[in-house]
Amino acid sequence: MATIYDVARHAEVSVATVSRVLNGSSVDPAMAERVTQAVTALRYRPNLVARNLRTRRTRLWAVIISDVRNPFFTDMVRGIEDVASAEGYSVVLCNSDEDAAKEADYVDVALAERMAGVILSPSSGRTTHINSLVGAGCPVVLVDRELGGVRADAVLTDNEQGAALATRHLVEQGFERIACVTGPQEYSTAAQRLRGYRAALAEAGRDEDGSLVRFADFREPGGHAAMTSLLDSPMRPDAVFVANNLMTIGVLRCLAEHALSVPADVGVVGFDELPWAEFARPTITTVGQPTYDEGRAAAEALARRIGSPDTEPTRTVLSTSLHVRESSLRER
Amino acid sequence: MATIYDVARHAEVSVATVSRVLNGSSVDPAMAERVTQAVTALRYRPNLVARNLRTRRTRLWAVIISDVRNPFFTDMVRGIEDVASAEGYSVVLCNSDEDAAKEADYVDVALAERMAGVILSPSSGRTTHINSLVGAGCPVVLVDRELGGVRADAVLTDNEQGAALATRHLVEQGFERIACVTGPQEYSTAAQRLRGYRAALAEAGRDEDGSLVRFADFREPGGHAAMTSLLDSPMRPDAVFVANNLMTIGVLRCLAEHALSVPADVGVVGFDELPWAEFARPTITTVGQPTYDEGRAAAEALARRIGSPDTEPTRTVLSTSLHVRESSLRER
Repeated sequence: MATIYDVARHAEVSVATVSRVLNGSSVDPAMAERVTQAVTALRYRPNLVARNLRTRRTRLWAVIISDVRNPFFTDMVRGIEDVASAEGYSVVLCNSDEDAAKEADYVDVALAERMAGVILSPSSGRTTHINSLVGAGCPVVLVDRELGGVRADAVLTDNEQGAALATRHLVEQGFERIACVTGPQEYSTAAQRLRGYRAALAEAGRDEDGSLVRFADFREPGGHAAMTSLLDSPMRPDAVFVANNLMTIGVLRCLAEHALSVPADVGVVGFDELPWAEFARPTITTVGQPTYDEGRAAAEALARRIGSPDTEPTRTVLSTSLHVRESSLRER
Repeated sequence: MATIYDVARHAEVSVATVSRVLNGSSVDPAMAERVTQAVTALRYRPNLVARNLRTRRTRLWAVIISDVRNPFFTDMVRGIEDVASAEGYSVVLCNSDEDAAKEADYVDVALAERMAGVILSPSSGRTTHINSLVGAGCPVVLVDRELGGVRADAVLTDNEQGAALATRHLVEQGFERIACVTGPQEYSTAAQRLRGYRAALAEAGRDEDGSLVRFADFREPGGHAAMTSLLDSPMRPDAVFVANNLMTIGVLRCLAEHALSVPADVGVVGFDELPWAEFARPTITTVGQPTYDEGRAAAEALARRIGSPDTEPTRTVLSTSLHVRESSLRER
């Protein structure tokens, strides 16, 4: 099958010129004629470009993630890509870097470049720019984090269930002062994981001690700072549930710097799988999210939304699982 | 200050022709010469934003990386983003997934979507599609991996130096049968890291034993398979230099499965920093690349290339450093 490169060679013009002709941009008429003849002679069927012209949308999906250095998001991207590719779309990733202004910029880009759809993991509680996107008729799926007041499909993890699994396990191991390092208050994931922690403590008949809760930033330095502050408090914890992977690294680093032993001095369970959990000293107990499946589900929701723009938004919630390793096992 | 209209009047050509010359697109040589003289005579400095409007290019840079799950690339992306943002560009990431066909698709996307520039870490030795991109006047910078026969700026790491550092260290520790697990033969990084390994062995007066070299895929399963094959060979290694981070994980997993102790049974040095190197049991000796700086340098090269499309391609090579930890220290 002829490619755009074959057309360019046949017409003796550059690929960019062929592309300009196919997009209807201004090109020297003689050249344009040569390109049209080559397209006919080679029976070239432009896929991406032609479809673009018809629908005036590209064959691109924008995936706006809040932290490209967090393996949770990059694992999810693989699931998205596999579905996108089967549906004939290419995926471009945009890193909002947990910054609402950058996120709004990428939403503008998605609109300006007429992206076929957007999968977004919100970087704040702000909804104005996302509602503009939805209002402009761009298919949108929210992933990982929920946003009230946005009419869009959402694919989420059962954060409360996962946090409760982790906390219940620490209770069962006999830890007594179980702390929680969660994320920024405005993120649904942070709020839900805190709620799961509280529910498990309540279930065990324990009073929650507010001095054992820290709100951090879902990043390594924030986890480190939160653990430092917990160690400095009068009510020093003997265990900690950490609400994401990067903060877990910060907590472990802080404990190592204080020469505290895990789990003898402080037991640790982290939310999110860590690719190296089993190489760590000690191995790390984690709450695993089905990241790849979450990406697939989000992409499938986007494909459905593109196909039927007017149906009611859906909400998909996936379960987590607890992987018990050494960091949370009390020696008795 | 002279405008593009002044240049066109002075050179007696159309504004479109001036624009084509400034973009490095193909133009009749006599016309091009007149434009260049006019630019010099009027001391014309093209305004980048206005130029984009005229050339109908977007304010987007495409960063085509070969594996979005490899932290090497995601760290690099931060360096790119910081420069892009200062220069007024947004960055979209494309994951070629070490697949030349996907890479070619993204190159088509960059052309079709009129991206302002492309930073690319090649996924194979193929150059046709990349040369088309360069030929179409799209500014291109290669990063991490080199490609012969492509006229583009390149930002690279001194792989040979890094591999030699790692291998020399294993020699000095008294390991005798030092293996090398490198990447696919067609990647410059794999070839250069193998060359550094060989150079360090030669420097130590050792004969290289070909049976101790494996070409794998720069991914975890490939590293695992290569180590399995090395353990099955008659000449079992007592140390291994692994040429990237993901393969190092595969090698460590394989050694753990065989109940072999690191470094007592097999010493290990991995190329690329591992964010968890210090939490591992044992801690892992690594060759660190300046990933963030590499991203910055690539983005700076792209910004320069957009500003002066006709200058000679540059080649920037950054140094690596060895971080000695437990996995390579022989108990004597």
